[in-house]
Amino acid sequence: MFKQKLKVAVIGGGSSYTPEFVEGLIKRYDEFPVSDLHLVDIEEGKEKLEIVGGLARRMIEKAGVPIHLSLTLDRKEALKDADFVTTQMRIGLLDARIKDERIPLKYGMIGQETNGAGGLFKGLRTIPVLMEITKEMQELCPDAWLINFTNPAGMVTEALLRYSPHKKVIGVCNLPVNMKMTIAKMLQTEVHRVHIDFAGLNHLLYGLDVFIDGKSVMNDVLNIFADPEKQMSMQNIAPIPWEPGFIHSLGLIPCPYHRYYYKTKEILDHELEAYKSGTTRAEVVKRLETDLFELYRSPDLSIKPPQLEKRGGAYYSDAACNLMSSIYNDKGDIQTLNVQNNGSISDLPHESAVEVNCIVTKNGPKPIAVGSLPVSILGLVHQIKSFERTAAEAAVTGSYQKALLAMCINPLVTSDETAKKLLDEMLEAHKNHLPQFFN
Amino acid sequence: MFKQKLKVAVIGGGSSYTPEFVEGLIKRYDEFPVSDLHLVDIEEGKEKLEIVGGLARRMIEKAGVPIHLSLTLDRKEALKDADFVTTQMRIGLLDARIKDERIPLKYGMIGQETNGAGGLFKGLRTIPVLMEITKEMQELCPDAWLINFTNPAGMVTEALLRYSPHKKVIGVCNLPVNMKMTIAKMLQTEVHRVHIDFAGLNHLLYGLDVFIDGKSVMNDVLNIFADPEKQMSMQNIAPIPWEPGFIHSLGLIPCPYHRYYYKTKEILDHELEAYKSGTTRAEVVKRLETDLFELYRSPDLSIKPPQLEKRGGAYYSDAACNLMSSIYNDKGDIQTLNVQNNGSISDLPHESAVEVNCIVTKNGPKPIAVGSLPVSILGLVHQIKSFERTAAEAAVTGSYQKALLAMCINPLVTSDETAKKLLDEMLEAHKNHLPQFFN
Amino acid sequence: MFKQKLKVAVIGGGSSYTPEFVEGLIKRYDEFPVSDLHLVDIEEGKEKLEIVGGLARRMIEKAGVPIHLSLTLDRKEALKDADFVTTQMRIGLLDARIKDERIPLKYGMIGQETNGAGGLFKGLRTIPVLMEITKEMQELCPDAWLINFTNPAGMVTEALLRYSPHKKVIGVCNLPVNMKMTIAKMLQTEVHRVHIDFAGLNHLLYGLDVFIDGKSVMNDVLNIFADPEKQMSMQNIAPIPWEPGFIHSLGLIPCPYHRYYYKTKEILDHELEAYKSGTTRAEVVKRLETDLFELYRSPDLSIKPPQLEKRGGAYYSDAACNLMSSIYNDKGDIQTLNVQNNGSISDLPHESAVEVNCIVTKNGPKPIAVGSLPVSILGLVHQIKSFERTAAEAAVTGSYQKALLAMCINPLVTSDETAKKLLDEMLEAHKNHLPQFFN
Amino acid sequence: MFKQKLKVAVIGGGSSYTPEFVEGLIKRYDEFPVSDLHLVDIEEGKEKLEIVGGLARRMIEKAGVPIHLSLTLDRKEALKDADFVTTQMRIGLLDARIKDERIPLKYGMIGQETNGAGGLFKGLRTIPVLMEITKEMQELCPDAWLINFTNPAGMVTEALLRYSPHKKVIGVCNLPVNMKMTIAKMLQTEVHRVHIDFAGLNHLLYGLDVFIDGKSVMNDVLNIFADPEKQMSMQNIAPIPWEPGFIHSLGLIPCPYHRYYYKTKEILDHELEAYKSGTTRAEVVKRLETDLFELYRSPDLSIKPPQLEKRGGAYYSDAACNLMSSIYNDKGDIQTLNVQNNGSISDLPHESAVEVNCIVTKNGPKPIAVGSLPVSILGLVHQIKSFERTAAEAAVTGSYQKALLAMCINPLVTSDETAKKLLDEMLEAHKNHLPQFFN
Repeated sequence: MFKQKLKVAVIGGGSSYTPEFVEGLIKRYDEFPVSDLHLVDIEEGKEKLEIVGGLARRMIEKAGVPIHLSLTLDRKEALKDADFVTTQMRIGLLDARIKDERIPLKYGMIGQETNGAGGLFKGLRTIPVLMEITKEMQELCPDAWLINFTNPAGMVTEALLRYSPHKKVIGVCNLPVNMKMTIAKMLQTEVHRVHIDFAGLNHLLYGLDVFIDGKSVMNDVLNIFADPEKQMSMQNIAPIPWEPGFIHSLGLIPCPYHRYYYKTKEILDHELEAYKSGTTRAEVVKRLETDLFELYRSPDLSIKPPQLEKRGGAYYSDAACNLMSSIYNDKGDIQTLNVQNNGSISDLPHESAVEVNCIVTKNGPKPIAVGSLPVSILGLVHQIKSFERTAAEAAVTGSYQKALLAMCINPLVTSDETAKKLLDEMLEAHKNHLPQFFN
Repeated sequence: MFKQKLKVAVIGGGSSYTPEFVEGLIKRYDEFPVSDLHLVDIEEGKEKLEIVGGLARRMIEKAGVPIHLSLTLDRKEALKDADFVTTQMRIGLLDARIKDERIPLKYGMIGQETNGAGGLFKGLRTIPVLMEITKEMQELCPDAWLINFTNPAGMVTEALLRYSPHKKVIGVCNLPVNMKMTIAKMLQTEVHRVHIDFAGLNHLLYGLDVFIDGKSVMNDVLNIFADPEKQMSMQNIAPIPWEPGFIHSLGLIPCPYHRYYYKTKEILDHELEAYKSGTTRAEVVKRLETDLFELYRSPDLSIKPPQLEKRGGAYYSDAACNLMSSIYNDKGDIQTLNVQNNGSISDLPHESAVEVNCIVTKNGPKPIAVGSLPVSILGLVHQIKSFERTAAEAAVTGSYQKALLAMCINPLVTSDETAKKLLDEMLEAHKNHLPQFFN
Repeated sequence: MFKQKLKVAVIGGGSSYTPEFVEGLIKRYDEFPVSDLHLVDIEEGKEKLEIVGGLARRMIEKAGVPIHLSLTLDRKEALKDADFVTTQMRIGLLDARIKDERIPLKYGMIGQETNGAGGLFKGLRTIPVLMEITKEMQELCPDAWLINFTNPAGMVTEALLRYSPHKKVIGVCNLPVNMKMTIAKMLQTEVHRVHIDFAGLNHLLYGLDVFIDGKSVMNDVLNIFADPEKQMSMQNIAPIPWEPGFIHSLGLIPCPYHRYYYKTKEILDHELEAYKSGTTRAEVVKRLETDLFELYRSPDLSIKPPQLEKRGGAYYSDAACNLMSSIYNDKGDIQTLNVQNNGSISDLPHESAVEVNCIVTKNGPKPIAVGSLPVSILGLVHQIKSFERTAAEAAVTGSYQKALLAMCINPLVTSDETAKKLLDEMLEAHKNHLPQFFN
Repeated sequence: MFKQKLKVAVIGGGSSYTPEFVEGLIKRYDEFPVSDLHLVDIEEGKEKLEIVGGLARRMIEKAGVPIHLSLTLDRKEALKDADFVTTQMRIGLLDARIKDERIPLKYGMIGQETNGAGGLFKGLRTIPVLMEITKEMQELCPDAWLINFTNPAGMVTEALLRYSPHKKVIGVCNLPVNMKMTIAKMLQTEVHRVHIDFAGLNHLLYGLDVFIDGKSVMNDVLNIFADPEKQMSMQNIAPIPWEPGFIHSLGLIPCPYHRYYYKTKEILDHELEAYKSGTTRAEVVKRLETDLFELYRSPDLSIKPPQLEKRGGAYYSDAACNLMSSIYNDKGDIQTLNVQNNGSISDLPHESAVEVNCIVTKNGPKPIAVGSLPVSILGLVHQIKSFERTAAEAAVTGSYQKALLAMCINPLVTSDETAKKLLDEMLEAHKNHLPQFFN
């Protein structure tokens, strides 16, 4: 009844996240028996792929599980007959991210890899590559699920669901699981007893209600969130505390990324500091990565090193492994995923990507109906969704006008004139990875 | 973490279905430990209550489970601090059902207990009593779930969700589970491997897709449904076969009750025969019930007698027990229930009752998003929902005009003049149970 | 600013309605100066075209207006550079209509030219021809408006709006203007003082409110409609009176065709009588037409003969002329037309055809927002719209399954088995005019 | 058929705009025969009322029309049996507006009377007074239309449509008529030949298409808007030119107020300059008003002085007079008004206020269906509508939390912390006019 030999292809296999992913597969081997694991990367990533691949091989050996590991630059070979394909590549590597962050800041606008002008450009570079991958999947492994954790996951999923022929696409983010774990900790209870009604978009996710054993504890959670001492953030977002009154008036749990929209001024000030001191997140991460790869190289290392958690993407791979296993095992558990809306959030188009609680079975994830969003968040959610839709169209078509429009309607780009300048400079800076705009 | 002593109140406890329900509780005692079971009935049902109660007592004793059984005519006492309340009463008993079936037939219109003029009147009698019960629940057990299996369950759930202050209301029907079991049998596979995407209204439920182990087998199922030899029906519906071409052109699985709408002529002919011979379903059931109660009386009987399955409501109680246990145990399994739409079927109002797949957790059932219904069924679904909404309003307000409107817009009542005559005669015939229309 | 030479092409120019149309053009010559009028027909209609054309010529001459009249069998020549194209043809002539009416009645189902099985087949024959005409228009007169009064106008408009490349399509019916005139008469006031909020579908049109000089007089109108002595019907619908209580409980003004749905039984009985006596509407009309053409032949006749009004389509041509003149003159008046919904009735798809009040300017008709329909009519409107959409798809694709589905979901076809038989017999009977089903 | 004696009450009659309004009534006397004109003001406005009233009297006398003028501080007397009530008051006078503009700027946020924090507070002060007026209208003139041109007209109309028992409420703005006149001038054509498909919210209005004599000239208009030399703005908005590329990528005509959202940075810089130099718009207007009232005092003045046009509200009163006359005369012309959406913009709630093209008849304005908004503007429109809804609720309930929420979700307030500080300081500053927050 279940296929006993599973093939998993990891596009961007040379990523520093891979050890967590491999650890996830090892841990779950009994329930999710991967026989073939293909780590794929591109020519420029060959060295990293070998380093990470070496560590992965040592981890598998140490664990003693019969996973056959292949390292390859041949994507098609990796996709052939795969059961699951995960994508975690960074087009243009961290240098591109540095540009995404620093160029907007030069113009006094927030620079970030999933929001604002930076998010737009990460999308413009990433989406065409993923479109190509899904086209190959249609041919080489039409029944496989694509599990994408390349950011901006919301925009990417939007683009694939609307424009790709391959519809078995799921966007995964570590944010929901992180929020749940943090909230459980705040409430001093075990994670499995906590249920959160999540809804929104990727990196714009709201907790609408929180339950312990079926009883709402929303007021307790709001009180904690309103307490500057107890609030939570994430590695890659400045932990500027929420105004307590805001939390109470919102009556919902914001995600860390909401700071970009409800604390734009504070975040911008913070980023401008980093800009001056050369410590934007990309620059910090670049150093962290160098250190990580140094570690990975060591032939003595045969486990995921604890330092990886600082990297910011903790639980990303875990979320992906959980998802694959639930599909394979028809678990029917609830996971918070980026999927086609299909009416689950009544206010948004059926065809759009949303991040909502889904029940995950052999047929993939099905969103649980959310109904209408509260008035208070309707505006922002629509604004980001309009941006994502416009950006996705720009990425797929290579339309300069659509790209400019996406830039202008993004709430973090506060001037049409600057939008134009930014667009032109960033197009030029990322020229090599934006062929659709230069033909 | 879980309450260890559960109180369940069964309104209409003297029903012939009760032994199945008690059996269900006994079977599930380990996971769903009911300590107090109250069977409630009204003065006129006292004798039946005692007969059924006697059997229930013998069943519990034989099973050796520590369920304390109370038989009572005092509803409030039964509701006090209950955890779950189930309702399965028949206002006006089977004699009322006989009228619901025979009066319309006299005018050449289909008479049935959940559809057409009969369904309307069953609703008009039932809804006010359930409104009263929910008001008492608000006071005596505000956290309890009401699990209703009194028909017409769709109209009743619609009325309660819209007009009752008590919102923890779920309508249960044995149809989805019966369809699933039958389809599994048709496919010669085990029930637990089959998943059906169900959506629609109560007694107007469609299978949108059927899966075995996550693979669609819809074409196979359609082929079987299109084969007159292999089709399914239910005890209380004439098993007139579907036109094969219809099944293929619909491309969906109809439920047995759909015959009322897609085979109106055949069903009417069939019922007119029964009318003449005194063998309408109500008349048949009345005889079955007499026999059943004869059986129940026997002090030697201490199990649910196999004869009960002919009664037509098989698995009703099982469905209810499953639901209660899933809520109590936070199971997160999928059940097909009548709940508030909340956008799960995009075409219907958020506030309306729909019958859809739900994930059942400690917070109760949450519908899985269905999206938009196929064009082919949109019309009929809207027509019945308009009827249910109008009928529910008539039942709650006692408005003659709304009752007449409900009658006129019902597709089984094919004349405004006859609608008026039917309404007047049925109001008179059921006068004792329709106080809202006679004050 | 306005074009001073207008070309109008009339497809089906040999129709008995044409004299009314010509009269309409003559009357409006000062405001709507048609210089070229082309009456087009097919080979089989040549004789009628000549008879009607002769009368038209005499009418124009008598009026002394400089309209140049052409009679032609060459449709493309007529379409070339036309400003307005009207379509009023009957594919298969009245003999086809006789089949549409009589075959269903043979099976005990209502036979009518715009509802039920007959309506379906009239649509299946007509839509492909109109699709062809609109394709020619795209090429020969892309800016021209197509004004269609060929029935079933709702289904035809649905099909053209969804499937034709030419979007300047308006469906015209004489029903709204007839209802308005009749209601004005009932209220003993002048037509121009009466305003009716109309909404629904073609031949399924409701008056939601009625005003005289901006004050609602809805209650007065309902009282008149509820009075069997004062009710209205139309030439081609049996004038069976409404049940007074129904009118009051509905609280809206039904159109005469609503009898097919709210008085199905009475209408069917009435039609079965006509079936037996050979006096179905088509048979009656065929005789009327013969008489009319006899009249038209007379060289002494140079006006529209009063006998035409009995024909049943009174004011059809007047409605079309009014529409063309309002577009040409940018009048901005309100007319009730079949147009793309575009959200005006919130409950129906944006892409579907609806019959609603529109403001008519040089840009064509724009629907006035209706909002949501009353619950009481939502079901029936959806049911007919589902039927129309399915039928339109069948007509355009020639899909047997879609045609069967349309038949089965039509509320006037009350059996899936009969639906199949009816479909097969009617397909055979109309074979010559249904090439899309026989290739 | 038409009432021949009309009573009009002007609340805030001492406004500097009144002469334009009186001129409008005089000009239209033949078609809109006002017999009683009541100018009402409050005690603090008595002097202005007398000055303006004096001028109004001289204007009426000079024109020789039999309008009877009353100046009064007794609002109820003015409302009694009125046919139309117009409202144009400023709660807290221009000093309050100065605070609305200067306090936000102190915190580095845009201060403006209809957008951002200033707009919020103008709403909080104004809405309760209008609620009171509509309650009085229900009693004293239930059939009268309230024609509001007090800003923020969108938020005010939203509040009244949702919370007032009096539903005959229309919000009027001079923006659409100004845009139409300017565009006609740009196109060098006459205004009456231009038609613009307008849709959006008050002060967030988009031109979706522009026609001359029924032909779209949208491309020409976009080209002009993209040309910094030819663009338009309004008296009270800094005429900072649009980025040409933005106009082309948007493909729609923005209104002058859109600069607040698409050129936030430039507008903020401009306002901060004005803040420093004491020349915010309120401060400028205060000086203009002093001069105007000086002029008005002159017994030699008996016409509307040309200097009034600089004031910024040109054509406001004209728009109001046009509206009243169209209702009275059942004109059926198209005007762009703030009315209940009722589905005309499919994306927004039926109950919300929108600014759209309406056909104006004796029954008041009915919106023409717009359908769905373009993706590009959906986000911003939703964001402002969410803000308006939240602000309206705060104004009606006096909820501090809702007011804080409104502040935080407004896109021009870019920090939750600053939002809180701003709210507290502005509540204190406007304390006298915000009784709902201080009880």
